[in-house]
Amino acid sequence: MLPLMTQTGLKGRERAFDRLCHRLVGSGRLSVRYPSGAVREYGDGSGDAARFHIRRPQALVRIALNPEFALGEAWMEGDITLEHGDLGDALTQLLKAGGAGRAGGMAGWLRALRRLRRRLDQFNPAGRARRNVAHHYDLDDGLFDLVLDADKQYSCAYFEHEGMGLEAAQAAKKNHIAGKLCLQDGQRVLDIGCGWGGMALTLARQANVSVLGVTLSQRQLDVARQRAEAAGLSGRVRFELVDYRALEGRFDRIVSVGMFEHVGIDHYREFFETVRGRLAPGGIALIHSIGRMDGPGYTNPWLAKYIFPGGYIPALSETLPHVERAGLLTGDIEVLRLHYARTLQAWRRRSQASRERIEALYDRRFFRMWEFYLASSEAAFRSGQMMVFQLQLLADLEAAPLTRDYMYTPAARQAEDRRAA
Amino acid sequence: MLPLMTQTGLKGRERAFDRLCHRLVGSGRLSVRYPSGAVREYGDGSGDAARFHIRRPQALVRIALNPEFALGEAWMEGDITLEHGDLGDALTQLLKAGGAGRAGGMAGWLRALRRLRRRLDQFNPAGRARRNVAHHYDLDDGLFDLVLDADKQYSCAYFEHEGMGLEAAQAAKKNHIAGKLCLQDGQRVLDIGCGWGGMALTLARQANVSVLGVTLSQRQLDVARQRAEAAGLSGRVRFELVDYRALEGRFDRIVSVGMFEHVGIDHYREFFETVRGRLAPGGIALIHSIGRMDGPGYTNPWLAKYIFPGGYIPALSETLPHVERAGLLTGDIEVLRLHYARTLQAWRRRSQASRERIEALYDRRFFRMWEFYLASSEAAFRSGQMMVFQLQLLADLEAAPLTRDYMYTPAARQAEDRRAA
Repeated sequence: MLPLMTQTGLKGRERAFDRLCHRLVGSGRLSVRYPSGAVREYGDGSGDAARFHIRRPQALVRIALNPEFALGEAWMEGDITLEHGDLGDALTQLLKAGGAGRAGGMAGWLRALRRLRRRLDQFNPAGRARRNVAHHYDLDDGLFDLVLDADKQYSCAYFEHEGMGLEAAQAAKKNHIAGKLCLQDGQRVLDIGCGWGGMALTLARQANVSVLGVTLSQRQLDVARQRAEAAGLSGRVRFELVDYRALEGRFDRIVSVGMFEHVGIDHYREFFETVRGRLAPGGIALIHSIGRMDGPGYTNPWLAKYIFPGGYIPALSETLPHVERAGLLTGDIEVLRLHYARTLQAWRRRSQASRERIEALYDRRFFRMWEFYLASSEAAFRSGQMMVFQLQLLADLEAAPLTRDYMYTPAARQAEDRRAA
Repeated sequence: MLPLMTQTGLKGRERAFDRLCHRLVGSGRLSVRYPSGAVREYGDGSGDAARFHIRRPQALVRIALNPEFALGEAWMEGDITLEHGDLGDALTQLLKAGGAGRAGGMAGWLRALRRLRRRLDQFNPAGRARRNVAHHYDLDDGLFDLVLDADKQYSCAYFEHEGMGLEAAQAAKKNHIAGKLCLQDGQRVLDIGCGWGGMALTLARQANVSVLGVTLSQRQLDVARQRAEAAGLSGRVRFELVDYRALEGRFDRIVSVGMFEHVGIDHYREFFETVRGRLAPGGIALIHSIGRMDGPGYTNPWLAKYIFPGGYIPALSETLPHVERAGLLTGDIEVLRLHYARTLQAWRRRSQASRERIEALYDRRFFRMWEFYLASSEAAFRSGQMMVFQLQLLADLEAAPLTRDYMYTPAARQAEDRRAA
């Protein structure tokens, strides 16, 4: 009970919201300035207090009824702002306190409704998958140029050493994945969801392999092709605008980074059967995806509407049944915990530094949406709700070495070992 | 169609068995000498042909009706022997050919019956758990002394380097697990299913920690206590005859090697909730268990009767839901594929070398049972049906380092890093 609490009385709707906050924010420390000007503090007083300012009484009702959706919208509209503190910190506190997280504060019927919607949302036939991808990945390249690293890696980096910056950590991510693929000269590699081509080009540089990268984003395709051309690798690295389910033939290696999140749970069987079907004898696949640490859930409705329609973040327990049924052998499962939080923090810092240019490309509302997306995602990783998993899958028992030592041996040494063998 | 096939005609029951073998053994190469003396070959002719000799017509019927159970019993009774080839090789071929494996060749009603039985078999209240453990682990120590390594590690070894022997590979296993536990001086460690104490003593030697090892086997307890005494570690390493579910208090580290296989699927929730409950903040648990590579299955009925009553080998997809629900964070999942095949091969070789002494301890039938257990288990790993997983579980996000580098840094170097930190 801080002295602030008695400075001003709360108005009608504010009192209901205040009760809700007391119920939801059990730990941590969070303060709210109400539309009337009154300020209240919540939590057990531990940690730094961020203070939200809720500027419009209507936002109180919307947030109370459906916090996971309405908080993001209110932020976009400027109906809620931050008086002090960092948005990532504040949202992490909320999630840790169990607020907007699992309990969610919404009525039971809303949850039931959402579970029904979960299935519909994830209905991803080829045509819709393409529209869903265009929604996000065809955003003006200028945005991604400003926010991402120079190679445009739009997925979790690997902070291999303390103090690593984003550029180095994205390079480390590509090397780490390449290491798990045990590339050998002459192999055929498939990159499902190749983005702007950075991973495919890295693999082609590390070994004399031919790579096919597929994406559903026309803009990504154009950039990836230009880059292959510029790197003098277009003879070995091809990019196509095609749904991975339409591919034929066999590949010695399959890599898919940050694409599985868009597959949708109803399509997991199809996904892993396709991977199994495209994988040659002795083959290795590496699936890098965000995962839900705390078991099956549902897609945050704000994220589903504004950022990733059709997406779903799976728990490992939802993913592995399909791996096993498809007849793929699980070679290794790495769980990267806080790496994506750091990645998102770096992206948000870069976004803030280029705020004016991003607002000029779009508008202020877009920037606030973008900022909320990065901050709330960061909070999901920092609170332990989300992680990233790297699933190494084998076509047969002898496809990969017996121990994981090779993943922790520098690439140069590995290449030497291969030459010696 | 080899010339042998026409040498002698098959008798009544033999013809039915012959048709079954043709249907089941699609690949590989296997030959059978029938009770009548007739010899037939099956498979596509690839690989070495092992030849079983079925000596009694009654065995034909039993094996045809319930191969997973009756093959083991017929072997124990000497009703089926091997004319040439290795039992492990022969059973691996059978499993790979899809024979005694999943399809099983038994009628549909037998499978349904078994699924029902799966639940009953795994009903493991504390009293029964104790009887189940005594069934196997109270076997005369002389047997395990003859078969296992000097430290009596009765679980999968870790063949870290090519050409490693069993002794070195068991030491490497203990070090590998110790590395994943990130031990720090002063910590409290719990070893669930401590066997003859080798892991507990290793951990106590690697760091100044106190260890409590629990087992349900009186013989294991006696040996473990003697060893702690002899090593001068009884001040820091205690052993108790107690069910892990009866424990109280918190531990910084929990390790469980080769015990989860005995828990039974109906008790997984209880198992992981207990681990969560016993784990202190910042805690790490490491569960090392055999896993089923190809998804949920059932316990081989012969193994359940003669070797491990109450046991069940889980698929990862059956294990992880309970990890997630218990609120444990998955830190890492390593899958060891062929390591247990090598371990079992070494145990079988040692058993063969001590055949006379083992038969003197028990009898010939016991030796044949023991031999079939080791060979059929080896086959399950070599055919890719089984693997071993090491599940590293965290009490919170920061319990373990951000990358897995520490697991691949020699212990000496790690100790140095800790001192420097």
